[in-house]
Amino acid sequence: MKIQIINGPNLNLLGVREPEVYGRQSFGDYLEQLHADNPGIEIDYFQSNVEGEIINKVQEAGFECDGIILNAGGYTHTSVAIRDAIKAVPAPVIEVHISNVYAREEFRHHSMLSAVCLGVIAGFGTDSYRLALSALVQKIC
Amino acid sequence: MKIQIINGPNLNLLGVREPEVYGRQSFGDYLEQLHADNPGIEIDYFQSNVEGEIINKVQEAGFECDGIILNAGGYTHTSVAIRDAIKAVPAPVIEVHISNVYAREEFRHHSMLSAVCLGVIAGFGTDSYRLALSALVQKIC
Amino acid sequence: MKIQIINGPNLNLLGVREPEVYGRQSFGDYLEQLHADNPGIEIDYFQSNVEGEIINKVQEAGFECDGIILNAGGYTHTSVAIRDAIKAVPAPVIEVHISNVYAREEFRHHSMLSAVCLGVIAGFGTDSYRLALSALVQKIC
Amino acid sequence: MKIQIINGPNLNLLGVREPEVYGRQSFGDYLEQLHADNPGIEIDYFQSNVEGEIINKVQEAGFECDGIILNAGGYTHTSVAIRDAIKAVPAPVIEVHISNVYAREEFRHHSMLSAVCLGVIAGFGTDSYRLALSALVQKIC
Amino acid sequence: MKIQIINGPNLNLLGVREPEVYGRQSFGDYLEQLHADNPGIEIDYFQSNVEGEIINKVQEAGFECDGIILNAGGYTHTSVAIRDAIKAVPAPVIEVHISNVYAREEFRHHSMLSAVCLGVIAGFGTDSYRLALSALVQKIC
Amino acid sequence: MKIQIINGPNLNLLGVREPEVYGRQSFGDYLEQLHADNPGIEIDYFQSNVEGEIINKVQEAGFECDGIILNAGGYTHTSVAIRDAIKAVPAPVIEVHISNVYAREEFRHHSMLSAVCLGVIAGFGTDSYRLALSALVQKIC
Amino acid sequence: MKIQIINGPNLNLLGVREPEVYGRQSFGDYLEQLHADNPGIEIDYFQSNVEGEIINKVQEAGFECDGIILNAGGYTHTSVAIRDAIKAVPAPVIEVHISNVYAREEFRHHSMLSAVCLGVIAGFGTDSYRLALSALVQKIC
Amino acid sequence: MKIQIINGPNLNLLGVREPEVYGRQSFGDYLEQLHADNPGIEIDYFQSNVEGEIINKVQEAGFECDGIILNAGGYTHTSVAIRDAIKAVPAPVIEVHISNVYAREEFRHHSMLSAVCLGVIAGFGTDSYRLALSALVQKIC
Amino acid sequence: MKIQIINGPNLNLLGVREPEVYGRQSFGDYLEQLHADNPGIEIDYFQSNVEGEIINKVQEAGFECDGIILNAGGYTHTSVAIRDAIKAVPAPVIEVHISNVYAREEFRHHSMLSAVCLGVIAGFGTDSYRLALSALVQKIC
Amino acid sequence: MKIQIINGPNLNLLGVREPEVYGRQSFGDYLEQLHADNPGIEIDYFQSNVEGEIINKVQEAGFECDGIILNAGGYTHTSVAIRDAIKAVPAPVIEVHISNVYAREEFRHHSMLSAVCLGVIAGFGTDSYRLALSALVQKIC
Amino acid sequence: MKIQIINGPNLNLLGVREPEVYGRQSFGDYLEQLHADNPGIEIDYFQSNVEGEIINKVQEAGFECDGIILNAGGYTHTSVAIRDAIKAVPAPVIEVHISNVYAREEFRHHSMLSAVCLGVIAGFGTDSYRLALSALVQKIC
Amino acid sequence: MKIQIINGPNLNLLGVREPEVYGRQSFGDYLEQLHADNPGIEIDYFQSNVEGEIINKVQEAGFECDGIILNAGGYTHTSVAIRDAIKAVPAPVIEVHISNVYAREEFRHHSMLSAVCLGVIAGFGTDSYRLALSALVQKIC
Repeated sequence: MKIQIINGPNLNLLGVREPEVYGRQSFGDYLEQLHADNPGIEIDYFQSNVEGEIINKVQEAGFECDGIILNAGGYTHTSVAIRDAIKAVPAPVIEVHISNVYAREEFRHHSMLSAVCLGVIAGFGTDSYRLALSALVQKIC
Repeated sequence: MKIQIINGPNLNLLGVREPEVYGRQSFGDYLEQLHADNPGIEIDYFQSNVEGEIINKVQEAGFECDGIILNAGGYTHTSVAIRDAIKAVPAPVIEVHISNVYAREEFRHHSMLSAVCLGVIAGFGTDSYRLALSALVQKIC
Repeated sequence: MKIQIINGPNLNLLGVREPEVYGRQSFGDYLEQLHADNPGIEIDYFQSNVEGEIINKVQEAGFECDGIILNAGGYTHTSVAIRDAIKAVPAPVIEVHISNVYAREEFRHHSMLSAVCLGVIAGFGTDSYRLALSALVQKIC
Repeated sequence: MKIQIINGPNLNLLGVREPEVYGRQSFGDYLEQLHADNPGIEIDYFQSNVEGEIINKVQEAGFECDGIILNAGGYTHTSVAIRDAIKAVPAPVIEVHISNVYAREEFRHHSMLSAVCLGVIAGFGTDSYRLALSALVQKIC
Repeated sequence: MKIQIINGPNLNLLGVREPEVYGRQSFGDYLEQLHADNPGIEIDYFQSNVEGEIINKVQEAGFECDGIILNAGGYTHTSVAIRDAIKAVPAPVIEVHISNVYAREEFRHHSMLSAVCLGVIAGFGTDSYRLALSALVQKIC
Repeated sequence: MKIQIINGPNLNLLGVREPEVYGRQSFGDYLEQLHADNPGIEIDYFQSNVEGEIINKVQEAGFECDGIILNAGGYTHTSVAIRDAIKAVPAPVIEVHISNVYAREEFRHHSMLSAVCLGVIAGFGTDSYRLALSALVQKIC
Repeated sequence: MKIQIINGPNLNLLGVREPEVYGRQSFGDYLEQLHADNPGIEIDYFQSNVEGEIINKVQEAGFECDGIILNAGGYTHTSVAIRDAIKAVPAPVIEVHISNVYAREEFRHHSMLSAVCLGVIAGFGTDSYRLALSALVQKIC
Repeated sequence: MKIQIINGPNLNLLGVREPEVYGRQSFGDYLEQLHADNPGIEIDYFQSNVEGEIINKVQEAGFECDGIILNAGGYTHTSVAIRDAIKAVPAPVIEVHISNVYAREEFRHHSMLSAVCLGVIAGFGTDSYRLALSALVQKIC
Repeated sequence: MKIQIINGPNLNLLGVREPEVYGRQSFGDYLEQLHADNPGIEIDYFQSNVEGEIINKVQEAGFECDGIILNAGGYTHTSVAIRDAIKAVPAPVIEVHISNVYAREEFRHHSMLSAVCLGVIAGFGTDSYRLALSALVQKIC
Repeated sequence: MKIQIINGPNLNLLGVREPEVYGRQSFGDYLEQLHADNPGIEIDYFQSNVEGEIINKVQEAGFECDGIILNAGGYTHTSVAIRDAIKAVPAPVIEVHISNVYAREEFRHHSMLSAVCLGVIAGFGTDSYRLALSALVQKIC
Repeated sequence: MKIQIINGPNLNLLGVREPEVYGRQSFGDYLEQLHADNPGIEIDYFQSNVEGEIINKVQEAGFECDGIILNAGGYTHTSVAIRDAIKAVPAPVIEVHISNVYAREEFRHHSMLSAVCLGVIAGFGTDSYRLALSALVQKIC
Repeated sequence: MKIQIINGPNLNLLGVREPEVYGRQSFGDYLEQLHADNPGIEIDYFQSNVEGEIINKVQEAGFECDGIILNAGGYTHTSVAIRDAIKAVPAPVIEVHISNVYAREEFRHHSMLSAVCLGVIAGFGTDSYRLALSALVQKIC
């Protein structure tokens, strides 16, 4: 079983950026722990600040992996192009958010991606990724 | 550890109502399995079609339980009163949906409740409840 | 043949409330006449001011009757939950209104229910119910 | 007793146009049956695709008939001019629709005409016309 | 000097239609008086309930007359096509209304035509036409 | 003189719920003091979290009391049905709010009820009720 | 017969300000000519850039004159207070504009004043004032 | 104890302007009675039709008085500048309205001022001022 | 192969009307050239300023021709009725515009027709018709 | 003659992605055929999922080529930056779409690019590119 | 070189009003320093809470000075009349704000004035005025 | 002292692109002059058409420089991702625009970035950059 995690813009700053919203742990540290807790699953990780590179990765992983966990960051709310990429690939995609986006600025309440994803998990800190992984495992097995 | 599941209007018809959207398993059957899989957790269940009774239960459980898993059904999108109840109690509340509400009619895309919940999990069928339980356990422990 | 009439909030005041809009005849009196004019049809009547009890009745009658005539009163314009109940049951539901709702305040021009009902009849006073009954008979027979 | 039925644009194609929405019976066939079922009522019929000719007919019939049954088709949603004609004449006008317009595209949910009509009947196929006729008879007698 | 008055839908009912809004004098009577008061001006009159015939007349008169006085009735608020006709002809067009349209239903507050007319005169009963004539005379001379 | 106070959802939590917004005194304590300060007035109290029960009480008290003081809580902003109940009864109704609703979330700025109430008093803590009582006494006497 | 002309903000710059929109003649020059052409009518003139002084003048003239010709300039589009003043006085008020406001920026298309004025005349340059005067004379005599 | 009452545009016409909305008593008469009923309180009165003079008075009284009762009339709905003045001064300000503004034209339903006032009292005729005074006394003492 | 070109309102003025937008060539001249360049195709032409006549022609040609090229002019943006006609007929319809409608007034940016047409070609002057013809030939052959 | 075709995000998946919308032919195959059918024209091709690279290419080709055929995919609906690039270069740009974007989700109905392009061709499958090429040839020659 | 600074409502309270937003220095103190730092420039200062007096000053200075630095305070967001004054005068006007208005309440995000000013400088405290002065010097010299 | 200037899409075309809006000087030439005028400040320059590369640079410079001057071009109006980057870094960011964006198309009136920047300077041509530099120096020193 092979799962691709894709993180969008500014998630490379996790642990540094607005820690009161996103926490103080870097994503690298979290990922190690996720790997350790899920030894039987191949978890690939990709981060980019470039919308088009996220599309490239969704296209690539979407044909090769069993599922994608996508936190598209600020592109979540505006990107028709990422939405089209998700719809174009066979792998199920779960939209995750670290913060509860619905409790923040109004422009974060609407997602261009949710409608073409399998489901949405938001507000649990980095634990959102673990829950998404668990959902994919349950879905696929 | 004590968790309250609250289901809102029409969820008593699960397994009967629109099975292409909500599946064919009744919530009772699913609940049994959830109990079996989580022997150390007390999981209470409540369902009502009456908005005010949901408020009553949120108020009651919100002071007695460690967490609430709430699927407010059709009241999700309009109920200021349930929102106020959630905000009034100390227990964390997770909003869950069986279907991917963001992929359905536009009036289901906005929730009056999300902003005052801990987080949102939507689109995984009844598995959304298991994930919410897992998130609460992780949060509380 | 068995038809359920369900009246929502404030329709218990018919004949008392705003008679220039709703007329001076009580619904009880009207119902007697409707029974008398349609001897071969079992017409059950239910009224409640509680949204959730209307849902309960739609769920119950929706599996037992040949059709439902529903005047959801003020809940017509906001209730996602009643809409979901209508969609969840096999019996055809006709939305009726005593007054011409489209000629009143703007918030009465939109109905959350119409899209999932068989059809809509509005503006004919209590005669709207007779027409709905006639429509159901025609539909079913 | 004299009733005018006025059908607007594209209703001349009934039985041919989108039969899954409007059915396969032509309006001529239906009209014959309606005449047969209501021998004591003079029912005149007029159809036009031209907005102005519908206005002409509303003006003419509105002073000569006991009531008008109007299906203004696509003009329903935009025509201030037909609305003004309805308001200008003494005869009561009932707005009818074959399909449940509230269950179709959003631009069909709003009618410019409903507010100045006696009432609205929508969603019962051609039976909407029989119900409107019955409502007019009840109203006038 | 040659002026064309064009009246749109339902203005043929002047004196009959909603007299509390439009007065009790027919337009024919008013026109006679206008002719009498302005002996040196050729005033042609045209009325139609058909949008396209109004366009035909604007096109024709717009190349032959010194000015057009246009009361497009209900088409005022929706007709891109009449607007295009006005813009296409060299003669100045004045938009007139008998009633104060800005004091009536909200959909009458916006005109599709005003922006391409020379000016607007509204609310003075049939006297609006005399004022428009006076404005054209002043403009042209 | 007989006055009915009706409190809507979550007001049973007064003194417990968001004390920085609503204060720390329970409504029971406040009511005792109100009784003590107004010995000549019969003040009845009712609280419910159920929209329909509030309607029931408005209907009942609206024919029996000299006035109603209504804090409909979260239902204030959405309930057409409570609005209809207020309009249906002869007793004057005053809308009160403990907090300044206009200084909170935008969805609290609009009330479905204000237009059919005698007046509105908001923002004075529980003192809003005393002011409403004083307004009713002044109005009635 | 006594008529008050009230000009609002920036109309003191007429002849100087944006001459391609408002022309090159000062209002003083125009007024002289208007006086000369209407010897039997007392025409008073007032201009102010201060909204409140326009209100003062409407209040004063509205009880003393036979009619008011008001060009409220930029306050036309926003002033509830001038609207209230117009509604508060018995004299009829005509709203005039030198330019065709409907052909300019969108925020100039809506007037807060039109609905409480007798009528509107816009787009004829300073000739709009003469037309308004003529309309008042016709109205009053 | 020193309280400033500030009345905005057109309130100088009280007793004259739209008596069916605002009553027939002048504010001067009412004020005398208010003074008589509250001998221990210094009540200063100011009225102006000029927005800026209302700001001047709010600034002045806001540093010298114990509270301000403000009826900003038509400026209530549009004035950012009065809002800023209220926010800039230490004295609590109560927004009052003689009529029930929420039952009138839609543009009167929203206030720019409410969010920065202590509270709002509307719809009780001139008695709104007495209630506001009572609220301030209660608040301050 | 038989193609029907239908031109809507004001297109009879081509070459005369706003030549900076629509060019100086009449449609008749252009049509001759189109015939000459496509000898094997029967190209019928129809123009009307009347919305209903355009509907008549769409209905007629829609059952007899292999394709329709439709420039509905100003009706493009408002006509539900023409939309319904297009949907009612089997022949594919291509929406064409001489000017780039998306670069003009905002009300020209939305078309009521595009969604039920095969495709849209806009902005190429009269060459838009040749391209549409070419598209139909490619589609059909 | 030199023409640049620029394809935006996800168009590299043509033939794979949503074939019911976009067809089963890859763009490479189509391009070969286009080259073969237009031997005298140099047709360059560029595809990228990165918005900025599309801008780079528009800037480069916009000064070197005779025309650009641009299908910006999902960026069509949101990209101010691509719009600015198109406006900045001398070469005419034609916006093309394979599917009829006006018949799909509402967010695809509006294009940020159309207003600065020469014209728009949408809905003809890959044939849209051939038509655009033909339009450019006609335009340039 | 002569520059006019115009400050609108509540800016006379600078140093007193909301110091966390606007700082603790009075404008008088700041102005002295500005004079001292720019010995060769005549800087006139005007402040008023009255919209009309700001217009008066813009009209006066706009013909006499080389430039205007305008902070219209709360009138920025609503005043068509000040906008018209700016457009009416030859001197360039720079809009300044002490606070970052785009980071505050939504109604402060839109300015009625920006479109007719030379430019906008906002968010630098009183330093915004120095920057505006520098911009004017650069522009004029 | 170290300042980073970041220019977004199409600003590499400065001097070439729409010179009537942006002027005829290239940014390179301007930058040289800026360096010469500010010998004590290290000014780094970066330009990219790729949104993600602008984010990369904001992240990098935001931790290393004393301030950032950002002209995000067309991304200004839509980019949540750049907004998040600005908020994530400690260095103050000033938003600059060469043209007066508030005087251009409506979609340029709103910026996604302003609320998280220190301030905004727009409309002074390339001089906007010098003013921003001056503001940063003043801020930091």
